[in-house]
Parts: sequence; C-alpha cells; structure tokens
Amino acid sequence: MKIAILGYGNLGKGIECAIKQNSDCELTAVFTRRDPSTVKVMTPGVKVYSVDDILNHKDEIDVLVICGGSATDLPTQTPEYAKYFNVIDSFDTHAKIPEHFANVDDAAAKSQHTALISCGWDPGLFSLNRLYANCVLPEGKDYTFWGKGVSQGHSDAIRRIEGVQDARQYTIPVDEALRKVRACENPELTTREKHTRECFVVAKEGADLARIENEIKTMPNYFADYDTTVHFISQAELDRDHKEIPHGGFVIRTGKTGWDNQYNNVIEYSLKLDSNPAFTSSVLVAYARAVYRMNQKGDYGCKTVFDVPPAMLSQMSGDEIRAHLL
Amino acid sequence: MKIAILGYGNLGKGIECAIKQNSDCELTAVFTRRDPSTVKVMTPGVKVYSVDDILNHKDEIDVLVICGGSATDLPTQTPEYAKYFNVIDSFDTHAKIPEHFANVDDAAAKSQHTALISCGWDPGLFSLNRLYANCVLPEGKDYTFWGKGVSQGHSDAIRRIEGVQDARQYTIPVDEALRKVRACENPELTTREKHTRECFVVAKEGADLARIENEIKTMPNYFADYDTTVHFISQAELDRDHKEIPHGGFVIRTGKTGWDNQYNNVIEYSLKLDSNPAFTSSVLVAYARAVYRMNQKGDYGCKTVFDVPPAMLSQMSGDEIRAHLL
Repeated sequence: MKIAILGYGNLGKGIECAIKQNSDCELTAVFTRRDPSTVKVMTPGVKVYSVDDILNHKDEIDVLVICGGSATDLPTQTPEYAKYFNVIDSFDTHAKIPEHFANVDDAAAKSQHTALISCGWDPGLFSLNRLYANCVLPEGKDYTFWGKGVSQGHSDAIRRIEGVQDARQYTIPVDEALRKVRACENPELTTREKHTRECFVVAKEGADLARIENEIKTMPNYFADYDTTVHFISQAELDRDHKEIPHGGFVIRTGKTGWDNQYNNVIEYSLKLDSNPAFTSSVLVAYARAVYRMNQKGDYGCKTVFDVPPAMLSQMSGDEIRAHLL
Repeated sequence: MKIAILGYGNLGKGIECAIKQNSDCELTAVFTRRDPSTVKVMTPGVKVYSVDDILNHKDEIDVLVICGGSATDLPTQTPEYAKYFNVIDSFDTHAKIPEHFANVDDAAAKSQHTALISCGWDPGLFSLNRLYANCVLPEGKDYTFWGKGVSQGHSDAIRRIEGVQDARQYTIPVDEALRKVRACENPELTTREKHTRECFVVAKEGADLARIENEIKTMPNYFADYDTTVHFISQAELDRDHKEIPHGGFVIRTGKTGWDNQYNNVIEYSLKLDSNPAFTSSVLVAYARAVYRMNQKGDYGCKTVFDVPPAMLSQMSGDEIRAHLL
C-alpha cells in the first residue's frame, strides 16, 4: 500500500514513523506547502514535493494522509483532495463534523474515492468506545476524561499573553471524579470537578509574574472554569522537562442490566501516550489500510471509524485473527 | 426486530432482560428442550414452546439467540439452526472457533442466512480490543487478565470433590502484575503471577476439610498452578454473600511508537460487571441487531465481531452517531 503525506509537521512525521512499523505500507512521497528543498524527511529515498505538484503523482498514491489543522486547513483540503485520491484526516472540531462529512462525502462519492475523516483517538478510538458502550449498555451514562497530557490549544493561549516567552499546559483528570464514576455513583460533574489545569510558564525578563498568573487563571473558556496552577520556570527547564507531547484519557460508561436494572456495570477504556502525535499517526495508518481496502471493494464516499469493520484494519487474514485474537 | 431465545438458563434470561432495554427489539418466543409447561418467562404475553416446534415459527423470527453451552450444545445447534434462521451464539471454546466458524458458515451461506458466533465479552468485546490495539500498535505486547469474578467451571470442579456440598470460585488478577504491565515493563508472566484463586466451600457434615482443601489446591489445570485460598463457610453464608455471578477483567496492550521506538503507549480496556450473564446478553442483543441488518443487506454466512461495522450495532442513524458520539 502506497501512502503519501500532505503536511510535514508533528503529525506528518508521526505518519512517517508509523509507516515504518507496518510492513505492508510504503511511504511514496511527502507534499508540503513550504519550499520542498527546506524539508528533510527521515525515510531514505523518499522525495519531498511542493503540494502544487501533487496531481502529477496521482497514480503513485493509494491513500493520501492529510496532516493539516482542523481550523482552516482540513475543511478545504480534504474535500479538494478527495476528488483525486483516497484520503484520511484527523478533523477534530466536533461541532463541524456533520458539515465536513457532507462536503467530503460529496467529493469522494462523485469521483469514486474513499475518504475517512476524524480519525485518531478523540475523535477516533474514544468515539468507537463511546459507541460500543452505548450499544451494549443502553441504560447508562457516558464520561470522557482527558489527560494527563499537553493541550496545544491551551499552551498557545498562554503564549499569547504579554510577557510570556514560552509555555506548556497539562490537562489533568480529577481523581475523585474518576473514583465516583467508577463506583457507579452517576455523578453530575461540573467542568471544574472533572479536570484541573497545570501551567509551566517561561516569562520574559522583567515581566510582571503576578499579572501573567492572574491573566491565565481568569481567561474565559480556557482557564476560568478550572482550578489552575501556574509554575514559572526557565526556558532551559521547559526544554528539558516538557519537550514531549504526552496525552491520554479515559472513556467510561456505567450502566444497568437485569430485569429490574439491579446490576451495575462499568466499561472503561483508557490511553496513556508518551507522544500524542505519534500515537494519533499510528491510528491513522491502520485506518489508511481500511480506506484502501474499502476502495478496492467499491465502497466509495466518506466514512468514519464507525463504518469500518475492525478486521479491515489488520494485516492478518480473517482466519488468522479468528485463531489468534478472538 | 423479532428475537427468539433458544435455551432459558442464565443467558436466556439475560437476553430477555436486555431485549426489554432495547425499544426496537421484541421477544417473540422462548424455545426449550424441557417441558414448556415447566418454564415461566418474565415478559407478559410471551409463549414458551418445545424446541421440536421451532420450525413452525420460522416466519416470526428475525434472529434466533442460541443460549446453549459451548461444550456440547452449540457445536451442533448453531450450524443446524443457521439453516433456517439468522442466528447468534456465545461459543467460547477458543481452540475450536475455526472449526465452528467453518461449520456455521457453510450452513448459513447455503441458506442465505447471517450468523454471528463467539459473541459476548471474551470472546467478544475483549477480542475487539485486542484487534484494535494490535492494529494501532504493531510493535507491542498483549495482556488479558480476568476477574475479579466467578468462574463457573472452577466452581463446578470443586463441587465434584467428595464431601463438597456447594462452592463458589473467584478468579482474581494480581495487582503487582497489572502494575508491571501498565508501567510498560513488558513482563513475561507465569500463570501463578497473573491470577490468584479464592474458593468459598460448603462442606457436607462430617467431611474431612483438610483433605478437601488439599484436593482443591493440587487439582491439575484448575488450581495447581495458582496460589489458591480456601474458605469453608455455611450454605446460608454462600447463599447470602455469593449468589450473584460478577465478573470482569482487563485487556492491555503496551507498545512503542516513534522513529526509534522511543515512546511508550498503554491501551487498556476493562469491564466490571455485577452479573456476567446479564452483561453477555446485552452484548448479544446489540449484535443481534447487526446480524439482522447484515442479512437485510444480503451479507450472508458466518461472521464474528471483527466483521461488523460498529455503526450497525446502534439504534441511532449515521447522522446521529456522528453528531453525538464521534
């Protein structure tokens, strides 16, 4: 299976690493909006091209992995490239998924391509677990917790504050909330009760630390509704202790079974990831395999993880997965 | 969707309870090998018939849930009834799944029915999680732990010992083993290191307790390879404290990502169930919906959970699940 990458940031690099772990996959090319001569990839022999040349490589690509951002890149890129390629993206603006799905479906169906959107772990593996748990326990309650992990959006918000040189923000689930959920207490949890936020901030020389801390803690949407801790550290400490992008989280559904709903049940799925983009990429490559196979079978249009039979993700045959994993 | 139950034991009763929670499902009939007049069901208006009459009800049944045992019932029942009905079973003899699959596939494909075997939580939801995690982390290691929960097979084995009146056996995962796995230490665990076994035994009057305890602890396959604890209690205590059939467990895969495999990742799925048969039944009813839909689409033959697109399990439309669960 020949995979190409569009956009060589953290996610694009992760795709390259994941391809290396999947013996049936081959990286054919990387496409970039930057000057291709400035982009160096890790895989020997793989060339970097300008995105403007991408249609010249149409026949060398089974699946194009689009590694743009959800805010402005993917809403235009995925429908556009679905006209020419089988595509997969990690679109994660939950509220706009229906619109994105419709646009991509239209482009892919007309051109007989297969597209899969909103792949990764949330949306992605977490969504799958919400769906399975909802189907198995119709009478129950869902909880999703994120962390401990770095939120890129919250780190960026801190960096925009005057006097801040650099910052890293960790989202942390509250242990007591997790305990109540797992104990089937069915708590109604406020934003503050579910997660705390911990910030590591490098201030510019002479900056007013008290003002920065106050601006962070009172920032609407991002921090005001949370218990937030701020630590001022040096750039050297940030670079040494906070250079990675770990993440993870928990999807829990508790629900009742039995004639009189007398039995409690807890279904819990959790991830603990040293690198968020590397793991997200691994999910995307597994689903790229399914996209290619669905296209081979004539299953065109836009899909999500909900539409993919799990067996299609595996390099193993049906006989093998039944013998070894069932 | 009209569902019928074949076999009204713990699992059959669980199916009846699960149907009550799914508004698109209706219990049409219960079939039994016993004298139907001796079997009382809970759902008002539902009749119990002899299994000998089942073919007379062919047109009233969309999916037949076969609730027999894996040792002797299902290997003959599922292929036989797949000739006449869409069927689902919970066949759990792992080593014989390929043979069972082939027999059922042959019967179902020839008669244009859809069959799904080995459904429940292990095999079933645990299998799904092993598959997803293997596809997402190709370079990693799988661990499955069971419990804390009642093992029916081990309880039965104790009951066969001379002088034993009744017994309940709990399988318990070892905390230290779970800790090592979650810490990505990739331990090679022996049988003894993974689980302990706790037995609650009611002895007959005058029985030799020391002999019973020794026979349990040295029983090959069942107990000899485990650290086993035996408690002698009264029948009243057993009936009061151990009448339910709780179970659960953990599926964990740890694996590496990154160009130099420098990142650790932990994917963990766990279940905590007050009633094993009630939960297993809830899984079966969700998959019965998928069986019916696959049959409507002309997708015949034998399937497993690996072949079912998750969306097919849900009462919700594609638009709804994308909007609410993705």
